[in-house]
Parts: sequence; C-alpha cells; structure tokens
Amino acid sequence: MTTGRRASGVASLESYLAERRRVVEEALDRLMPPADAPPARLHEAMRYGVFSGGKRLRPILAIAAFELAGGSGSGVLTPACATELIHTYSLVHDDLPAMDDDDLRRGRPTCHKVFGEGVAVLAGDGLLTLAFQVVAEDDALPAERRLAIVQKLAEANGPSGMVGGQVADVEAEGQEPSLSTIGFVHSRKTGAPIAAAVVVGAIAAGAPSEQQAALASYGERVGLAFQIADDLLDVTGTAEEMGKAVGKDHERGKMTYPGVVGAEASAARARELVEQAIADVAPYGERAWALEAIARFIVERRS
Amino acid sequence: MTTGRRASGVASLESYLAERRRVVEEALDRLMPPADAPPARLHEAMRYGVFSGGKRLRPILAIAAFELAGGSGSGVLTPACATELIHTYSLVHDDLPAMDDDDLRRGRPTCHKVFGEGVAVLAGDGLLTLAFQVVAEDDALPAERRLAIVQKLAEANGPSGMVGGQVADVEAEGQEPSLSTIGFVHSRKTGAPIAAAVVVGAIAAGAPSEQQAALASYGERVGLAFQIADDLLDVTGTAEEMGKAVGKDHERGKMTYPGVVGAEASAARARELVEQAIADVAPYGERAWALEAIARFIVERRS
Repeated sequence: MTTGRRASGVASLESYLAERRRVVEEALDRLMPPADAPPARLHEAMRYGVFSGGKRLRPILAIAAFELAGGSGSGVLTPACATELIHTYSLVHDDLPAMDDDDLRRGRPTCHKVFGEGVAVLAGDGLLTLAFQVVAEDDALPAERRLAIVQKLAEANGPSGMVGGQVADVEAEGQEPSLSTIGFVHSRKTGAPIAAAVVVGAIAAGAPSEQQAALASYGERVGLAFQIADDLLDVTGTAEEMGKAVGKDHERGKMTYPGVVGAEASAARARELVEQAIADVAPYGERAWALEAIARFIVERRS
Repeated sequence: MTTGRRASGVASLESYLAERRRVVEEALDRLMPPADAPPARLHEAMRYGVFSGGKRLRPILAIAAFELAGGSGSGVLTPACATELIHTYSLVHDDLPAMDDDDLRRGRPTCHKVFGEGVAVLAGDGLLTLAFQVVAEDDALPAERRLAIVQKLAEANGPSGMVGGQVADVEAEGQEPSLSTIGFVHSRKTGAPIAAAVVVGAIAAGAPSEQQAALASYGERVGLAFQIADDLLDVTGTAEEMGKAVGKDHERGKMTYPGVVGAEASAARARELVEQAIADVAPYGERAWALEAIARFIVERRS
C-alpha cells in the first residue's frame, strides 16, 4: 500500500477513499467464505450484508492510521477488514425487528427482510466470529500484534463497548434526555468501535504507545462527531440521500444530541470534535493528511 | 488444579465434576462484568444466561484435556470459561422466537422471555465478544497459545463451525432426511464446538501436536455422541427431567439421528462413538480417566 500524499482538496480525498475502498472490498471478498460453499444461505446472507455499498469508513481509518504510523506492506489489511465485518454484524443485528426494526439499509431491503430473521441473527453471529478468526489466522503480523488487535476489537465492541452502548441506548428510549446518558451511549456505541479501528491500524504498524494514544484520542473524537452527524442527518437528511428511513430517532423517543441541544449546537459540537481530532494528529505533519481529511469529510457528508 | 486420580466408579466422577464446576463458576463470576455495573440490564441478562445450572461440560472437558496433557497451574481456566460463554451465547440466540422459539431452558424462562428479545440478542453478542476478550487478556498464558485458542474457538464456532451447522439445520427442516445432511449439521453444530473445548485445553497445556490430534478426535466423537444422546432425550426424556420442552424436534420437522435410523440404532451409534473416543485417549493411561468417564457419562445421562 502506498502512503497517501497531500494533494489539492476534495478530489484528492475522493481518490484516496475510492482506492482504499477497492482494496478493502477485494480483501473482504478473499476473507469471506464463497457464496456457493455450503451452507450457501449463510454465506449469501453474510455477503449481502457486507457488499452493500458501505463507505468502509472503519477499515479506511485503520489503513490511514497504519500509514501515519509508518506501517508498510499489507499487514493492516486483514485487521482493517475485521473492523468492517464487525460493523456489518452490528448493522444486521441492529436492523432486526426486536431492535430498530428497519426494512431498508443503504437503499436495499435489510438482511432479515431478504433471508429471514433466524438467518440474519446467525449471519451477524458468523460475521462477528469470522472477524476474530481472520485476525488470529493472519500470518502477515506477529502473534503479539494479532493478539493485541483481537483484544482491542473485543473490548471496544463487547459489553464494555458497542454492545453495552446499544443496551444503554435501548434503555434510554423514552427517558428524560440528558447529555451524560448520551455521552455514555455514544462513547460506547460509536466512539469505541471507531477509535478501535484507528488503534488497530496503529497496532498493526507497531506504533509506539504515545502515537497509539494520540490516534486513540483522534478516533474517539471522530467517532463521536460521526454519531452526532448521523443523528443530524436523521433530522435533516432525506430517505433518498440516506438509503434508509429518516426521522426514526424522534419517532422512537431515541435520545440524540440534536434532540437535547438542538441542530445548530450539535453541528457546532461536531465541528469542534473534528478540530480537536485534527489537533491530535497534526503533530505528525504531512503523514496526517488523510486522517485530517477524513475527519472533515465525516461532518460534511450528506449521507 | 490437582490432577484427578482414578477412584471407584460414579462417585468419583461426580465429585470430579462437582469440584470443577465450582472452580469454573467462580472463574466465570470473576470474568464477567458485575451485575450492577451499567448498563446493568445487559450484565444481568448475560449472567442470567450463564448462571442457570448448566453442566459446564465444555469447560470441564477443557480442564480434563489440560490435565491429561500435563498442564499445571490455572492457565486453562480462562479459556475453559470462554467455551462456556460461547456455549451460553449460542443457547440464548438459539432460543429466540426467530430461531427455535423456546420459552424454557433448564427449567427457567429463557433469556428473551425475561429481558426481551432485543436485550437477548445483545446479551448473546456480548457473551460471544467477551469470550474472545477474556482469552486475549489472560496473561496466565503466553501470547502464542492465547492466539491459537482464539483461532480455534473462532473457527469451531463461526461459519465453518457452529454457526454454519445452525444454518444448515434450519435449512434442512422439512427436507427429506439423510445421514449425510445430519452428519454435516452435527459435526459443525455440536462436534466442532465440543472438540474445540478439548483442543483449547490441550493448547493451554502446550500439548505436542500428536496429542492435540488425539484429543481433537476424542472431542469430535464425544461431541457427536452428545448430540445423538440429546436427540434421543428429546424423544425419550420428560420435560421435567430436561428442564425444557421435549418432542419439539419431531414437531418442527427437525432432522435427527433417531428420526432417520430409529432410537435403538442411534443409541448403539452413540455408544460406538464413545468407545472410539475412549480409544483415542486410552494410550495416555491413568491420565485419561476423567475424559473416559466423561465420555461414558455423556451417553448415560438422563438430562
């Protein structure tokens, strides 16, 4: 993988993202069981979830952090894909009738609408388990780094991370909104997994601990900014732009940042987080350009 | 942990199982988030699933394999608990309305009946993720062994193992029964996870590869015997003995060994598998007594 170089503006970020999206999607295809291998229905459902036009934000963050930390070779690719497998599992389970009950995701029927609820539960389970399997089996990295990556992914996505945030989110529905509850939910549900993707890239590169800490801080801030931007898009976006139903947070009594402080203050907070995230990586100069550009992209995106 | 010694008959196995069950349950309690830590509802649901009077067969198999392989110290305890966390997650998801739709498990309402479907899905997700986390963080073992354990657990329980078997099982419902389909389902759904528990114990002990292979073969055979015994109990057991509904396999058109070859031939096949499993470990003499006794227990149990 070549280290990205700063070029002029948006066109440069676009080509950076497109190139890495392509590399990630090729690797995902290699790492996942073939669609026609038995049981085909499971593998089809897993692939349906994964290959649905996602932004691949998490794996690209992992790659960009790996590049910043001076990593070379393809050692980051499998861990980067693991973050996307975990992200996809979380969407498949989140869309279930027992959870958010969404029929549409990225403009297509959700996994359980196509394959049934039972298979969707199992496809999610399979994606999560496969994420740990591919990292453990990835001989492009020394055992110590693979183990640290497994640990980080599990911690950030399990009870102390994403899963904990999801339950807290469900619990908070209909309760009196508070910024402390929102902070608890967001830092676990979105902050931790996105921060983990960044840290995973740093670990894969063998980054020293102070660099890992700077990247972790960048990741948490970008993750929180992403969640606020997502909540804002649920208010201001259209279903066509988003490829999924909008306005559902309010309908559901979900606690959101815009719901508590309003759209304007939320947008300001997201921009502030992005500036802080950029400051985290600014000391790394030119090598930080992709992470800086991605941070800006996160609050400026329209879907 | 002391190495078990052969004593006279059933009383000896009973005390062996009881002692190890106690040790495993204490370790599970230490490894899991406290019930009152936020989000409490998640941790309560996870603990409700785990502390429900299970036999702890998988962790005890891991410990017995560790002992056979000459392991000493507490290095097997966390990986052993990981097998139980994974087993519990699979039961919680399996009981969901979208899957087997069971209201009763070990004589108590199933997790989703108590905590709701959404939380049950997430509790299962949390247990699975926590299993990988505790192994990765367990500094009682060198990194190489922890990584090999993560790999084995993921492989045996993911798309190529348990999750694949579950989907194949759902797919097979109502189809023309065949021994080859049953073999595909059983080897993945039950054989692979139980074999993995045995192998995890061998890895934790640093067993040489031929010993690992013998233990893997033992585990697969015991796993298949266990599944056949389970299917037989669904035909011959009572709901009171089993602590769950019985006769459901037939009701559901589920493909089972007794359904294809009859109860008598199934019982004979289970006994044959147990004798073969015992032969796998017999070369290890006295040190194999616990695994031999557990193998016999599996086909003789009444619940």
